[in-house]
Amino acid sequence: MSVKLDAADLNAFMAAQFPQVAAQFHVEHVSPMAAEVRLKVTDAHLRPGGTISGPSMFSLADLAMYAVTLAMIGPVALTVTTNCAIDFMRKPIAGRDLIGSARLHKLGRTLAVGDVLIRSEGSDDVVARASLTYAIPPAR
Amino acid sequence: MSVKLDAADLNAFMAAQFPQVAAQFHVEHVSPMAAEVRLKVTDAHLRPGGTISGPSMFSLADLAMYAVTLAMIGPVALTVTTNCAIDFMRKPIAGRDLIGSARLHKLGRTLAVGDVLIRSEGSDDVVARASLTYAIPPAR
Amino acid sequence: MSVKLDAADLNAFMAAQFPQVAAQFHVEHVSPMAAEVRLKVTDAHLRPGGTISGPSMFSLADLAMYAVTLAMIGPVALTVTTNCAIDFMRKPIAGRDLIGSARLHKLGRTLAVGDVLIRSEGSDDVVARASLTYAIPPAR
Amino acid sequence: MSVKLDAADLNAFMAAQFPQVAAQFHVEHVSPMAAEVRLKVTDAHLRPGGTISGPSMFSLADLAMYAVTLAMIGPVALTVTTNCAIDFMRKPIAGRDLIGSARLHKLGRTLAVGDVLIRSEGSDDVVARASLTYAIPPAR
Repeated sequence: MSVKLDAADLNAFMAAQFPQVAAQFHVEHVSPMAAEVRLKVTDAHLRPGGTISGPSMFSLADLAMYAVTLAMIGPVALTVTTNCAIDFMRKPIAGRDLIGSARLHKLGRTLAVGDVLIRSEGSDDVVARASLTYAIPPAR
Repeated sequence: MSVKLDAADLNAFMAAQFPQVAAQFHVEHVSPMAAEVRLKVTDAHLRPGGTISGPSMFSLADLAMYAVTLAMIGPVALTVTTNCAIDFMRKPIAGRDLIGSARLHKLGRTLAVGDVLIRSEGSDDVVARASLTYAIPPAR
Repeated sequence: MSVKLDAADLNAFMAAQFPQVAAQFHVEHVSPMAAEVRLKVTDAHLRPGGTISGPSMFSLADLAMYAVTLAMIGPVALTVTTNCAIDFMRKPIAGRDLIGSARLHKLGRTLAVGDVLIRSEGSDDVVARASLTYAIPPAR
Repeated sequence: MSVKLDAADLNAFMAAQFPQVAAQFHVEHVSPMAAEVRLKVTDAHLRPGGTISGPSMFSLADLAMYAVTLAMIGPVALTVTTNCAIDFMRKPIAGRDLIGSARLHKLGRTLAVGDVLIRSEGSDDVVARASLTYAIPPAR
C-alpha cells in the first residue's frame, strides 16, 4: 500500500481548497496509513489559563485524519467527518506547537476510521487523543 | 434548582474572558440545566461544498455546554472540557445561523455531563449532536 | 412516518433471532423514531458495589437503538452497530429494572444515528447516556 | 514506573471479585501502562451472521482497560468506567479468540484514560477500537 499524495501535495491541496485554515497547519510527514500534522500555535488558539482551546485541538485532529485519508485515496475534497470522540488529558507545554499523529485502522470504500494522538512538540506526553470516522463520497 | 447566571450575564462574562471567540456566539436563552446558544455563521465557518466546518460545530457544542454549566455553577472560568463525542449528520441549511441546545444530565461537584443538539435556525432537523464532559476545578 | 414493526413484533423477532439475549430484554413501547426497552436486571448484571455492569448498560443501549431502527426499517437482522459513545453517570437504584429510551436523529439509507437515555424504572435521573450509529445493509 | 500487579495477580483478583465474568477472560500479559487480555470466544458471544456481539467486544475493551489500570494502581475494586467510545470496524475471524491490547495515555489521581485495540488472535487487522476513562475512587 503506497501513498497517492505526499506531504508537499497535501499542503498544496489544502492551501488551494481552504487557504485561511490551511495557513494554521503544516503536514510534516506522510507514510502508508499514517500522517503527522503541525498546528502552528498562535495567541488566537489560547484560552484563559494559557491552555490551547478545545476547538483548536479538534481542528488539528480533524485535519490530521483528513491528511492521512487523502494521502491514501487522493484529492477528494468532499470527504467529510461523520464522527469524532476526543479526550483532553493534559495542558500543552506553553510556547510550543502541537503535533497530531494520525493513523488509519480501516480504509474502506465509503468509510475511513482512525486515531490521532496530539502532543506538544518534543514531548512524549499525550495532550489529547481522538478517534474519527470520515465518509468518502461514492463517486471517486 | 435555579440559574446563577442568566443569558445576559453569560454573554458579558464570555466577552470579558475571550472576546474574539465570544463575538461569534450569542447565548440566547438559559433555564435550569439547559441553554441555547447561537453561532453567527460567516464565510469563515464555511468549507468546500458550502457546509459549516466541523471545528465550528464543535466550538458551538463546546460553548453551549460551557454556557449551561456556568449558568448553574456561576462564573468559573477554568472549567475545561475533558471529553466530547460528536456526530455530524446533515448539511446545515445555507445562509442560516446554527442553534445549539444544551442540557445537563449530571452536575456533580467535579464533573458536568450533558448533550447538545445543533440545528439550523428555524429547522427541526438535527445537523449534529454532541455529548460532553466538563471538569469543574475543586476550589469554587 | 409510521412504524413498520410494533413492540410485539420486535419482541417476537428478537426472540427468534437471538433467544438468550432477547430473554433479558423487553421492548416496552415503540413510536415513530423512538423506542423504550427494559433490561430485566438479575444478579448476573451486577458488579462489586451493587452497581449494574457497564456491559449490561451497553447492551441495553445497543438493543434500544436496534429496536427503534428496526421499528422504522423492518426486520433487517444484519443491521450492525458501527460506533457507540457512552457515559456512565450515576449508580442505578438497587432492585429496579433499567429502562432505555432511544430516539433516532437520522435515518438514512445506509446509516441510522440516535441517542439512548438509561434510567432506573420510575426515576428521572439519567444513569447512563449513549449515542450510537448503526449501519444498514444495502440490500433491503 | 513499574506494575503493582502482574498478569497472574490480575487473573486471581478478578476471579475472586466477579467469577462468572472473569471466567470468560484471561489477562495474557502486563507491562508498564499496557496490558493484553483474551476473550475466550464461545457460542454465547456470537450474533446472527457469525460475528461477535458488540457487548462482548465492549466487555473485552472494558476489562482490558480495567486490567491495565489495576496493574498500575493495585487492587482497587471500585474503580469504574465513566466513559467509552468504541468503533466496530471489521468482522472478526471465525473460530478465533479476540485479543484486546490496552495502553494508558494518562494515569492521574482520579482518572485513567486509555485506548484498546481489539484483534482476532494471530491477525493484524483491527476489529474494534475503544477509548475509555476510568474513575479511581479517592480513598486509596
